[in-house]
Amino acid sequence: MKSIIISIGDEVLIGQVVNTNAAWLGRELLAIGIPAARIITVPDSEKDILKEFKNAFKEYDVIVVTGGLGPTHDDITVKTVAKFFKSKYVLNEKVLKHVKSIFARRNITMPAVNIGQALVPEIAQVLENKTGTAPGLLIDKAGKVFCVMPGVPYEMKYISQTGLLPYLLKKYKKKITKVIRQKTLHTIGIGESLLAEKIGDINKIVRKGQDFEVKLAFLPSNYEVRLRITAIAASTSRAEKLIVNAEKIIKRKAGNFIYSSGESSIEKTTGELLKKKKLTIAAAESCTGGLITSKLTDIPGSSDYVMDAIVAYSNEAKRRLLGVKAETIKKYGAVSKQTAIEMARGIRKRSKTDIGISVTGIAGPTGARPGKPIGLVWIGYSDKKATFAKDFIFTKDRLRNKDIMAKMALEIVRRKLINV
Amino acid sequence: MKSIIISIGDEVLIGQVVNTNAAWLGRELLAIGIPAARIITVPDSEKDILKEFKNAFKEYDVIVVTGGLGPTHDDITVKTVAKFFKSKYVLNEKVLKHVKSIFARRNITMPAVNIGQALVPEIAQVLENKTGTAPGLLIDKAGKVFCVMPGVPYEMKYISQTGLLPYLLKKYKKKITKVIRQKTLHTIGIGESLLAEKIGDINKIVRKGQDFEVKLAFLPSNYEVRLRITAIAASTSRAEKLIVNAEKIIKRKAGNFIYSSGESSIEKTTGELLKKKKLTIAAAESCTGGLITSKLTDIPGSSDYVMDAIVAYSNEAKRRLLGVKAETIKKYGAVSKQTAIEMARGIRKRSKTDIGISVTGIAGPTGARPGKPIGLVWIGYSDKKATFAKDFIFTKDRLRNKDIMAKMALEIVRRKLINV
Repeated sequence: MKSIIISIGDEVLIGQVVNTNAAWLGRELLAIGIPAARIITVPDSEKDILKEFKNAFKEYDVIVVTGGLGPTHDDITVKTVAKFFKSKYVLNEKVLKHVKSIFARRNITMPAVNIGQALVPEIAQVLENKTGTAPGLLIDKAGKVFCVMPGVPYEMKYISQTGLLPYLLKKYKKKITKVIRQKTLHTIGIGESLLAEKIGDINKIVRKGQDFEVKLAFLPSNYEVRLRITAIAASTSRAEKLIVNAEKIIKRKAGNFIYSSGESSIEKTTGELLKKKKLTIAAAESCTGGLITSKLTDIPGSSDYVMDAIVAYSNEAKRRLLGVKAETIKKYGAVSKQTAIEMARGIRKRSKTDIGISVTGIAGPTGARPGKPIGLVWIGYSDKKATFAKDFIFTKDRLRNKDIMAKMALEIVRRKLINV
Repeated sequence: MKSIIISIGDEVLIGQVVNTNAAWLGRELLAIGIPAARIITVPDSEKDILKEFKNAFKEYDVIVVTGGLGPTHDDITVKTVAKFFKSKYVLNEKVLKHVKSIFARRNITMPAVNIGQALVPEIAQVLENKTGTAPGLLIDKAGKVFCVMPGVPYEMKYISQTGLLPYLLKKYKKKITKVIRQKTLHTIGIGESLLAEKIGDINKIVRKGQDFEVKLAFLPSNYEVRLRITAIAASTSRAEKLIVNAEKIIKRKAGNFIYSSGESSIEKTTGELLKKKKLTIAAAESCTGGLITSKLTDIPGSSDYVMDAIVAYSNEAKRRLLGVKAETIKKYGAVSKQTAIEMARGIRKRSKTDIGISVTGIAGPTGARPGKPIGLVWIGYSDKKATFAKDFIFTKDRLRNKDIMAKMALEIVRRKLINV
């Protein structure tokens, strides 16, 4: 069982749009055991589209097409589908009603051009699109499934999830012999090799049997290491059990360093811990410029534990807003253990929160001083019982530094909350 | 003249990596007049790669291949290239020296496996890669150019810019009959139709002659509208002149609403204005949670005009840190014109900056109250001469709201600084 993804549109070829649709479809098709063996981007040209349709229909079981379903003259996908399958058009009343209702909701008279979106090749089944005007079209012919969806990402995802993927799962139930499941575990601020050492004997995780396989990949990027577990098995339930098992072994060994499994973020994990423990937090930010608090407040409900924050970019602000002593800055510098500690304690006391966190560092591209390179950061932590600071040297890139410094600060809070 | 981009790698097909390389290459190939007519992603399989190489060599003038150049067993691109061109390997001393020097710099002995990266098909020219170990390979045969580069984005970009693109420009100088140039102008907080009205007669911009064409596209997204000018002409200088001319006409009519042309951001434009006018700024942020100040401090040198900021998430913090009156919040609510004004004035006075900016709103997904829907925001502005607040209703999505609210606040500062 293999599939092909065909993306239609000049805007993809000229790099105006990055093809995130193909990546999303690739993941989903892999998950149901019909992995994509090709992704092809084709211009808005009937000749080119027909050529790729022909090739695809010869070689693949499932053909997934996105793009070119809009109401204007350069949207030629449906016309080309009708031509390819030598099918005439019919007006689909249900689609017409839906398109009309979308305009009615906005109090706009439907432009005549949109009637075209309800003209459907007779051979096709309509896949409902509650998120937009153009429906998905599915053609089941010669044991193969050919599906066309709009290129707007959320419309494509809606139609895939409610129409295409359930259809494929049902149709090919017996033919799908291999199901693939993946899960990613996230770590911050622990090196790849140290992580590997903690996990220990890899052969307890990575295994291959006659009808199954478990793989583990280390994916490092910008001081984060993701661990991706892949399980291949004959059924979804078996693959999921293999994932659960591998995750258990990893967590037993290195669980404290894994801040989340799946799609979660460090701000979500730390936020949930704060909420659960009914603790409040405030940040005193220098080089992160508000990014720690912006991340924390990305999470709905964060007003339960985030009260306020101070961005003290200048030395004067560190003194006035956080009570850092002038002599501390003079003696040790603004980027120092001592300043980080006074900032963390200062914000905690002034904001009357349970936890104060602080960051002072050199984000770059300039600002290095002898013994203080670009990328150096001191992260301070303070609660009623303990106050400390840790230093790290990250990259030479300002934006990457801001991001990893903010994440590391939240990771330090997380580790403290679980007593690591 | 047309090109094809071939991306090699299972990680792209399974959606683990989004193919940003192809988008970047698409833009660059378009710019030099050799647009991509296909983008194809192929698995790490010799058979599949050979098949696509064969097709590509038959139909396209330029074949650009990325990925699969690493030192490990699953990187089979170079081997497949040698097979395709029936060329034997030679050890390239220059590449070997370079690979060795990279390891030496890190004080690591070069693993034996990396010697393989210096083995180059005899038919290929080496394109230097200062950013990594694997060089680019270029084969010029039968009037066609075939080029292989690593999949790591910054390595691919380096080799393209220093090796591939200059080579193509030189080789096909006489054959390139159409050059395409594009420029994008950015606006925030002005509707597409109002913008079109301001620009006026579109036919003064959009024009088509025998050997040239100028196009204009309106690209709206999340309360921003980008204007993309495209010029097609026989030479780079002619195309660039057409762009300059179109930009002039647009700016004469709607220039005040365009915060940047090209790749700039609102935080960069507003920051540059503050720096030029020697003004300082501080933000009082509620629902944006520090994002305005984080954006401002993304710009190197922002410490010249950003002193500090207060994130006053709770009502208590608005009173304590900004001096907002308890009765103001009680009477009008935290999300109100009056609170926004007191926040902006409060931060300006306490931080002793020239400008104070404030944001108080409902980011969602919950928190709506009668008359105050999700997405409502009041943005306050205060300087020595004027203090005011403006309201907007944005989306129902928390992260999109935070982003556009922060950008709109910076846009309000920009407009005030240029007296719009």
